[in-house]
Amino acid sequence: MGPLATVDFMHKLLAATPATRDQDHLPLLVSSIPQVPDRTAAYRGEGASPLPALIASGRRLVDGGASLIVMPCNTAHLWFEPLQEALGVPMLHLVDAALGEARRTLGDAPLGLLATEATVTSGLYTARAPQIAWRLPTGRELAQWVTPGIAAVKAGDLASGRRLLAAAADSLKSRGAQGLVLGCTEIPIVLDGNAARMPVIDATAALARCTVAWVTGRRRPFG
Amino acid sequence: MGPLATVDFMHKLLAATPATRDQDHLPLLVSSIPQVPDRTAAYRGEGASPLPALIASGRRLVDGGASLIVMPCNTAHLWFEPLQEALGVPMLHLVDAALGEARRTLGDAPLGLLATEATVTSGLYTARAPQIAWRLPTGRELAQWVTPGIAAVKAGDLASGRRLLAAAADSLKSRGAQGLVLGCTEIPIVLDGNAARMPVIDATAALARCTVAWVTGRRRPFG
Repeated sequence: MGPLATVDFMHKLLAATPATRDQDHLPLLVSSIPQVPDRTAAYRGEGASPLPALIASGRRLVDGGASLIVMPCNTAHLWFEPLQEALGVPMLHLVDAALGEARRTLGDAPLGLLATEATVTSGLYTARAPQIAWRLPTGRELAQWVTPGIAAVKAGDLASGRRLLAAAADSLKSRGAQGLVLGCTEIPIVLDGNAARMPVIDATAALARCTVAWVTGRRRPFG
Repeated sequence: MGPLATVDFMHKLLAATPATRDQDHLPLLVSSIPQVPDRTAAYRGEGASPLPALIASGRRLVDGGASLIVMPCNTAHLWFEPLQEALGVPMLHLVDAALGEARRTLGDAPLGLLATEATVTSGLYTARAPQIAWRLPTGRELAQWVTPGIAAVKAGDLASGRRLLAAAADSLKSRGAQGLVLGCTEIPIVLDGNAARMPVIDATAALARCTVAWVTGRRRPFG
């Protein structure tokens, strides 16, 4: 949905693919429709549901021959189940990909989560990994740092986005986070482990690696 | 065709779009099929024609509702006319976009051209702008620097690609080039005006700007 996040995902998919020439890369059909209704507004009941637009976008890919669909937008995964049911082709779940990498690299250490208000408050991450002592941004931190930070990235103001999101990361670290899940695909565009001052789980990169693994069949996607 | 070049084009399309939020960006359907037969090999008569694969890829976009098609691969423009005829929707020509920017920014100064052997030897650029005193890589420079430089970018070895292509740029500059057309979409991924030590025309960025102009209707694409 965020078009820069889509480009970032494609870039990470290329990086995750063992290739020495064009023809080694995965054939890809991409539907980048930034007009999909805002996911957080819909979750709040303040805007139209994105589901019809997500289904239309996915159907275009299925009609074009896609045998696997991935969706590099965390918040849109609130509609993952009905979307997958409507499309009828395999889909990989971004949040499961990120949590799988978190478990493999950080065990069950306390984790911070930077994500949209809808992703944080819906439990999209926390309910799928209840064994983790999550450190979540407060309502005030969401309003002051996280939401405007994500909006700055969407508006192309990467420097402001980085500054705001790093401030939020600092606060989660001070409350005990030993690692940080970048749970909105705009966030890894500006924040890495150096800027966050702790190990990060990049959900976009995790989904890219799962996608390559699924396609090349070397292992189960969330193994 | 080169998947990194496709990502580079999408990035430049975002940069060329006046937008402050996701919804301001252009809806985009991308068919990135790195398995399209090698264009230079086909031009040499040493490989299958890419045209059937280009038509299949383009039809997928037309079937998905595309009202304009662009193709961020210079060499593939050797098949532009039959492709456009087969698809029946408007297409913008990458080489015309680059030459339009060259004329606006550099006048009719002598220009170097870095591109695949097929693009250089077919006259794809030179025949469309015969008033320019072109400085072209020799057969030896193509074999020694340009072809391996492009292959290095395709293989993800950006440092080697930059070094090889910068050597070729130096030679064109020493022969009088006052500007350099980056006429293969792998090249601007590693070479800019600093590395080339002269003004460059980035064909990928030129196509992105033409695309935005066409869609927003502010001016004719090659005006």
